[in-house]
Amino acid sequence: MSDLHSPNPVSVPLAKAYRLLNHGPTVLVTTADGIRRNVMAAAWAMPVDFDPPKVAVVIDAATLTRRMVEATGRFGLTVPCVASLDLTNAVGSVSGDEFDKFERWSIGVLPDAPDTPPRLTAGVAWLDCRVIDEPGIAARHDLIVAHVTAAWADPQAFANGRWQRGRDDLQTIHHVAGGTFFTAGTILSARPMD
Amino acid sequence: MSDLHSPNPVSVPLAKAYRLLNHGPTVLVTTADGIRRNVMAAAWAMPVDFDPPKVAVVIDAATLTRRMVEATGRFGLTVPCVASLDLTNAVGSVSGDEFDKFERWSIGVLPDAPDTPPRLTAGVAWLDCRVIDEPGIAARHDLIVAHVTAAWADPQAFANGRWQRGRDDLQTIHHVAGGTFFTAGTILSARPMD
Repeated sequence: MSDLHSPNPVSVPLAKAYRLLNHGPTVLVTTADGIRRNVMAAAWAMPVDFDPPKVAVVIDAATLTRRMVEATGRFGLTVPCVASLDLTNAVGSVSGDEFDKFERWSIGVLPDAPDTPPRLTAGVAWLDCRVIDEPGIAARHDLIVAHVTAAWADPQAFANGRWQRGRDDLQTIHHVAGGTFFTAGTILSARPMD
Repeated sequence: MSDLHSPNPVSVPLAKAYRLLNHGPTVLVTTADGIRRNVMAAAWAMPVDFDPPKVAVVIDAATLTRRMVEATGRFGLTVPCVASLDLTNAVGSVSGDEFDKFERWSIGVLPDAPDTPPRLTAGVAWLDCRVIDEPGIAARHDLIVAHVTAAWADPQAFANGRWQRGRDDLQTIHHVAGGTFFTAGTILSARPMD
């Protein structure tokens, strides 16, 4: 797969990082341990605090991603878009225990150290996350809570601290069921009520 | 405020209840204790398990909703839509400690017992939730985890076990920032990758 667009990651202030997930997009969870990398899709991810920012994501205990998250204490979130719809569905449909998804699908990554959770060129926003030790809720609910330690977004999609209604192919995607996704549609502003 | 549409809640099988939140809509959290009712907006809610279904929602410790959730062990989620954009923003902007939002804004509710978390007519889907006792993560992260014990949806918006691209005014809404929301846009299907 060739790169679908040429992302231009610009740093997002940490106090605004929650906005990258505020509207409920499906995300890609990436991991790396210096030897191998992996990526899976997750529809169940959300912010849990503003500043300093925290996120929660559901990662099934049976997955390679979960083992790598627990071993390294780190993961990345790449927010995919319409241009990476097929890839998002593909990486969410098979385990990294079966084959190397990066090789299989020629997944592009931004330059980073080999033990850094990769940021995929398929994205329009990226978060670097450090796991908060909460073994009880991980065991009982597969819930992983983490600090967001850095965040970036492509200014073609997210600018001035918020998502923009920009190019159709850069709109975020929101999993409905079975490989179908809503795209982020139009932006509406609420009117004050007396 | 008059009713914006005439919702027709049809029961959703519990094994499909997660799909009501799968695509990341903003929700309305409702509570009732037999004496008073309250409602607030929450952008941070997601499924955490399929069957039996569980959800997680962030509810700030300083809110009336949180006190009522902890006192009753119950809450409801109403999934609002474009037609209830202004109401969603309004109930998310003020505390129920200041005034009765139901009276102030003539919020319509479906018929239920007075101690049942109300289902708002402003919605296109509804979930009844029973809190799972997790005081640690509630205290540390304001995360409330709950079982979903019943679910309903309006078949004009959600049918055959999934959201449909139907009437514009019944599309779900996804908070961007400061009272602006994405609407759920078009539905795209991923193509298989080799």
